[in-house]
Amino acid sequence: MSEYFLGIDIGGTKILTAIADSSGKILISNKRSTEADKGQDVIIDNIIKTIDNVLNNSNISKEEVASIGIGSPGPLNTKDGVIIENANLPWRDVPIVELLEERTGISPIFLENDANAAALGEKWFGAGRGVADLIYITISTGIGGGIIIDRRIYHGKSDIAGEVGHMIIDPNGPLCGCGNHGCFEAMASGTAINRMAKKVVEDNQESKMFALLKGDLNKINGKVIAEAAEMGDQLAQDIWKRAAYYMGLGIANLLNIFNPGMIILGGGVMKAWDYFEKPMMEGIKKHAFDSAFSSVEIKRSELGDDVGVKGAIAVAMGDRLLS
Amino acid sequence: MSEYFLGIDIGGTKILTAIADSSGKILISNKRSTEADKGQDVIIDNIIKTIDNVLNNSNISKEEVASIGIGSPGPLNTKDGVIIENANLPWRDVPIVELLEERTGISPIFLENDANAAALGEKWFGAGRGVADLIYITISTGIGGGIIIDRRIYHGKSDIAGEVGHMIIDPNGPLCGCGNHGCFEAMASGTAINRMAKKVVEDNQESKMFALLKGDLNKINGKVIAEAAEMGDQLAQDIWKRAAYYMGLGIANLLNIFNPGMIILGGGVMKAWDYFEKPMMEGIKKHAFDSAFSSVEIKRSELGDDVGVKGAIAVAMGDRLLS
Repeated sequence: MSEYFLGIDIGGTKILTAIADSSGKILISNKRSTEADKGQDVIIDNIIKTIDNVLNNSNISKEEVASIGIGSPGPLNTKDGVIIENANLPWRDVPIVELLEERTGISPIFLENDANAAALGEKWFGAGRGVADLIYITISTGIGGGIIIDRRIYHGKSDIAGEVGHMIIDPNGPLCGCGNHGCFEAMASGTAINRMAKKVVEDNQESKMFALLKGDLNKINGKVIAEAAEMGDQLAQDIWKRAAYYMGLGIANLLNIFNPGMIILGGGVMKAWDYFEKPMMEGIKKHAFDSAFSSVEIKRSELGDDVGVKGAIAVAMGDRLLS
Repeated sequence: MSEYFLGIDIGGTKILTAIADSSGKILISNKRSTEADKGQDVIIDNIIKTIDNVLNNSNISKEEVASIGIGSPGPLNTKDGVIIENANLPWRDVPIVELLEERTGISPIFLENDANAAALGEKWFGAGRGVADLIYITISTGIGGGIIIDRRIYHGKSDIAGEVGHMIIDPNGPLCGCGNHGCFEAMASGTAINRMAKKVVEDNQESKMFALLKGDLNKINGKVIAEAAEMGDQLAQDIWKRAAYYMGLGIANLLNIFNPGMIILGGGVMKAWDYFEKPMMEGIKKHAFDSAFSSVEIKRSELGDDVGVKGAIAVAMGDRLLS
């Protein structure tokens, strides 16, 4: 009998579920709206629908599914399979593993923090193949991270290791959502970049960004900043440089602490790679020990939008990946 | 035949060598001046003299010594057993393991970074017994660190993991010896504290520190600051608070990134524990995630001045400690 693995990526707006063969290759996937506003029962129903969909469309029986991996935003209790809370989902203390084991009859099911799952996905199926120790950093609205040590996710004592976005890199910096000032996330995330840009446009209405926004500064986003930069707007280019400086500083800190073989960068902000790559790399080089800088590869995520679900599949495969 | 383990702690001013039984208990130790100014051959001779001394005084033969561990400041190449450079010792690219194997006939000999060795010593013989993941931080002239993951030293890709002292926590902070601004070491080490105090005394000659120094501000040190604080000097007390704030911030960063079960603090600055414990703990609590803060124990080194040599013994014992 063949063995298959199911991965489920639970997001605030969509659920992406896929089934993979024993090499981790995705055979079929299914995406559905999470319908987070409709509450726990509807969300669970939607997850079940995606599972049924991929099983039916691949003609794989439940008995052939060796295990399921779930990637979800945290905080979680991965050991007990409980989602403690999600910023974008209206549920609390959801024993998701137990619920899905009951509904599907499939066991075991493993729950994992989404950034950790993504790190594991990149390690086995993406940019990190062949590397034992790496840090995956996702830079989008916020900054999250997953740490792989000796080919496994490093969880830490209470399951929250890898919160690199809340490393403080400038105590006089802007307020972060976590209540502290100058976290990496407050200095270099998409939200931070938008905030910087808004301020710049407020003070400089001659910026091409102002024209692109038709004066509605609340519509500022990465695309507008990139477009203005592309048009030669120095102010927009400087925003990327400033964010890139802090990206470089935060990454350099991680190099000095962890001395990893690889840093993999994912998340929406990577779309602007061409604007920040150079100043970011300069920032890393300037702030990291030579030996840490010269021994690390800085790569972009290779799994792109599939990083969540491929990570969930890696979580499902677990120790099988080590052999 | 019994097995014994030799540990050698090579410092800029002294060499401390000890021999331990298979439980890691030190039977006898010997301390000698390093005589760093006399060059490589004399230093090696002095190391050999300490080895001969502990063997002779314990009546243990070379054949009974299972292995030797060396703790040395870095940078090192631990795999090849080479000391690349030491700030306080006038040698470069010293193949110390090969040299000592030749001179003693004892093999294997393991070389380890002193902060890593200290971390391992605390893990097995000190404050960290029973804890799998911990970070040892030594705060003295500089700030160094050693990371223990799954009961072993975490070395990183190029052997420099654990350089927590060069995590940048305030890019507008003072210049660090490494060339960057606002490293943890530049904000909270003994050197940083003395620099802060000197500035305070320059501006406030009414401070009790000024009287204690008899006006010679270059003589400022932790003892004077502590003494003035003890005498009720608010300025001196504030210096500890300020340093403690940055200690707390740096440690909190490590908690958010690593979520370790324990942080062990060593180094000379710990002598002033009573002055900074409270504000440091407040700083950690304020800047770390609740879950990371509530799951970590913050402890002082239990091995004190022996941390180096006990760490070297732990290095010598290696994987025997795991069984």
